[in-house]
Amino acid sequence: MIVVKGGVTTAEGFLANGIKAGIKKSGKHDLALLYSEVPAVAAAAFTTNVFQASPIKISKKHLANSIHQAVVVNSGNANCGNGKTGDRDALLMADCTAKNLDLKTKEVLVASTGIIGRRLPIKNIKDNIPGLVMGLSREGGGLFSEAILTTDTKKKEFALKVRLGPSVVTIGGCSKGVGMIHPVIAVGRHPSASLRMVPSERKRVEGHATMLCFITTDAAITRRMLEEALTEAVEDSFNMVSVDGDTSTNDSCFILANGLAGNRRISAKDGYYHKFAEGLKFLTIELAKMLVRDGEGATKFVEIEVAGAATRPDAAKMARRISMSNLLKCCIYGGDPNWGRIAAACGSSGVKFDPNKLDIYLGDLKVLSGGAVVKNYDIDKARSLFQKKEISIKVDLKSGKGRAAAWTCDLSKEYVGINSEYST
Amino acid sequence: MIVVKGGVTTAEGFLANGIKAGIKKSGKHDLALLYSEVPAVAAAAFTTNVFQASPIKISKKHLANSIHQAVVVNSGNANCGNGKTGDRDALLMADCTAKNLDLKTKEVLVASTGIIGRRLPIKNIKDNIPGLVMGLSREGGGLFSEAILTTDTKKKEFALKVRLGPSVVTIGGCSKGVGMIHPVIAVGRHPSASLRMVPSERKRVEGHATMLCFITTDAAITRRMLEEALTEAVEDSFNMVSVDGDTSTNDSCFILANGLAGNRRISAKDGYYHKFAEGLKFLTIELAKMLVRDGEGATKFVEIEVAGAATRPDAAKMARRISMSNLLKCCIYGGDPNWGRIAAACGSSGVKFDPNKLDIYLGDLKVLSGGAVVKNYDIDKARSLFQKKEISIKVDLKSGKGRAAAWTCDLSKEYVGINSEYST
Repeated sequence: MIVVKGGVTTAEGFLANGIKAGIKKSGKHDLALLYSEVPAVAAAAFTTNVFQASPIKISKKHLANSIHQAVVVNSGNANCGNGKTGDRDALLMADCTAKNLDLKTKEVLVASTGIIGRRLPIKNIKDNIPGLVMGLSREGGGLFSEAILTTDTKKKEFALKVRLGPSVVTIGGCSKGVGMIHPVIAVGRHPSASLRMVPSERKRVEGHATMLCFITTDAAITRRMLEEALTEAVEDSFNMVSVDGDTSTNDSCFILANGLAGNRRISAKDGYYHKFAEGLKFLTIELAKMLVRDGEGATKFVEIEVAGAATRPDAAKMARRISMSNLLKCCIYGGDPNWGRIAAACGSSGVKFDPNKLDIYLGDLKVLSGGAVVKNYDIDKARSLFQKKEISIKVDLKSGKGRAAAWTCDLSKEYVGINSEYST
Repeated sequence: MIVVKGGVTTAEGFLANGIKAGIKKSGKHDLALLYSEVPAVAAAAFTTNVFQASPIKISKKHLANSIHQAVVVNSGNANCGNGKTGDRDALLMADCTAKNLDLKTKEVLVASTGIIGRRLPIKNIKDNIPGLVMGLSREGGGLFSEAILTTDTKKKEFALKVRLGPSVVTIGGCSKGVGMIHPVIAVGRHPSASLRMVPSERKRVEGHATMLCFITTDAAITRRMLEEALTEAVEDSFNMVSVDGDTSTNDSCFILANGLAGNRRISAKDGYYHKFAEGLKFLTIELAKMLVRDGEGATKFVEIEVAGAATRPDAAKMARRISMSNLLKCCIYGGDPNWGRIAAACGSSGVKFDPNKLDIYLGDLKVLSGGAVVKNYDIDKARSLFQKKEISIKVDLKSGKGRAAAWTCDLSKEYVGINSEYST
C-alpha cells in the first residue's frame, strides 16, 4: 500500500466539480458532483437513524439498480424533515443531474448536509446543475471536497494505491462533518435494508454537520465484494469516531468502483480482496480521524484503545462509550488528568467485566491497576500527558482478546459557542 | 398529600448532623450522619455502573441485615478505585459510627461522593465521628443536607405528609449531585443484586458529583413493600434526569422507615401502599428535578415529554436520549430553536417508530407534523420559547399509549469550565 496525494479523482476515470449555487447564506461552494466516465458498481452505508433525510431514501431506492455513474451532493441544507416535498426534491436533484449527464435517473445517487427542517432551494440546484456538469474535470476533486463542507474548517482528502498482482489499483476519497458526529452507519441497497453505519451533522454558519464520505476506486470488483469491504471498513473507521455523541439523519458513505485498473476482478474473499479491503479500511480510518481532528471547537485529538475484552464488539462498545464521556472530554480540554472519569465510563458502557481486573493507562503511564489506583503514580507526568495535543488512553480488561480503538476530541467552550446559535 | 417544609428529620424519630471533618480542601462541611431513634427497615437503590465505589459494596453487604438505624456519609472523596483499602475504609466508617451509636456495624449504611481514585482520609473521619454523633438533633437535617454537597450550589430538601386512614405519615428527604448525573440506579440488597438505579457525580472544588439521596419516613411498612415503592419511585425520578450523560460509580438512594407514625403496617399493594408510593414518587421527582435545576453550569431547566409510544419503556428511552443530546442542549443554552436536533435524537434513540407520524412541539407550538416541518410555523415564537428559563419539549409518536417525562438542563460554556480543571 502506498499513500499518494489525492482524493476522489485520483483513481482512473473519475471527474468531479464543486460550485456555488446559493444554497449557503455565506455564498460558499455548496453543490458538488462526482462522475465516473464508465459505468461503475456502487456500495453505500447510510445512517441507522430512524428519522432519515430524503436523499438517503432516494439513494437507497436507486441502489436497487446495478450500475451507477454519478453522485450529486449539496451542503447548507439537509433536506430532512421535509416530508414528501423533500423526497420529490431529492429525486429532482438526481433526475436533473442524470439528464445533463445523459444517464438514467436511477444511475445517480444523492446526498445532502446542512440544517434539518428547511425546504431545499431546489430551483438554485436545478439552475446550477448544467454548469456543474460542464465543469467536471480530473482537477475538480478539490472543489468537490470543498463544496461538501459545512462547519468544517478544512478539506479532508486521502488516496492510496494497492498492488494486486500485475495491476495497481487506486482508492481515493474525501469526507466532511465535524459536529453531530457519532456515525452508526450500515451498508444497504434497499429502503428497508441497512447493515450498519451512521455519522453526524455540524454547522458554523450553515447548520448541522453530518458525516459524508465519497470514495472512488478503479479496482475491478463485484458489487457484493465491494459491499463486504465497505462494511468492514466503516465498522472500524466512521463507526468508531465521535465528536459529540449525536447521530445524524444524513450520514452517508458512498464508494464507486469502475474497474479501469484492469485487475483480475475481485469476486471472492481471496488474497486480492483482502489487500483491497485493507487499503479501503486504512483510507476510511484516515478520513474518519480527520473529522475528529477538525471536530467543532476541538483543541485535542484523543485515541482510546480497549484491550483484553471478551470480544471485539465488547471492546468497541466500551471504547465508544469512553469517547462519549462529556466529563472526560472536558478535563482533556482543560489538560486535567481526571482519569476516574474513564473508570466511570467503562463501568457504565453496558459491557460486563471484572472491575477488579481493570487497568487504565494514560499514554504509557499506568494509573489504575486491578481496579485500584497505582500507589504514588506520577501525577505530574499524568498532567503533562493530558496537556499534549494528542492524547492516548488505554484500558485493559485482561479477560480476552477483544480489542478496538475509538477516536474523539475534547469538549471545549468553543464547541458550546458554535452550537448555541445560528439556526434562525 | 400535603407538602411541608422539611427534610430528612421531618418524619418522627429521625436525627441528623453534618460537620467539617477536613476531607474537603475548601474546609466546608463534609461528614454527615442520619439516625433513627428506633430500629427501621431500609431499602436502597445503587448505581448499576460496573465499577462501583467501596461504600456501595459495604452498604449492599449490610443490607443483608434486616434492620438499620444509621447512614454515615462523606463528601469530597468518592472512595472509588481504591481496591481492598477502600473497602476496608468504608467498613471502618460504618464500624466507627456503629460503636459510637451502640449499634451493630451491619445496622449502619455508608455513602461517599467526591473524586475517584484518591484514598479516603479515614483518620479525619474516625476522629470526627464521636463529635458527629454527639451533635445529632432534629434540627440537624439542614446540616446533613449541606455536608453531602459537592459542586452543588444549594441544599436540596423536600418533605410531605400523606394521610393513611386515621394516621398521617411523613416522608422527607434530601439529595445532592449536579454533574456526572445520569442515574441508572437499581434497588438491591445483596452485593450481586440490583433492580435498577444509577445517579452521578460532580465538582466545583472537590471533585465529581454523584447523585445521593436520603429519605426518611415514619410510616410502618414492610421492607418488601418499601423496596417496591422505592423501585417505582426511582424509575420515574432519578432515572429520568440527566445533567451530562455520565453515570457515576457512587449513585445511591436510601430510605429508612421506622414505623413511628403508627399506621396499620403496609404489607401488600393495597390502598395505603398506593398512597404511600404516590407520595414517595412525588418526593423523589421533586428532589431529582432540583438536581437538574442546579446542574453544573445550568442556565435553563428543560422538561421533555414523549407520548404516543408503543410502551412506557420506549417513551422513557426516547425521552432520555433527547435529554442527552449535546447539540440540543447547546442550542437551548443559546436560545436558538434548532429543533431538527430533537428529530435526530428521536431517530437515534434505539426506539422503533414511524418517522412519518412524528410530531414535535416546542411548548404548545407544533413545529413538525407527521415527520414534515409545519409550513410557516411561527419562528419568532419558537425563538422566544427557547429563550425562556424553563423549556418544554413534547414529542408524539402517535402509535400507542406509552408516555414518559425526562428532565435536563442546558450545556453551557460554564459546564465546560467547571469540568475542565480541578482534580490535581
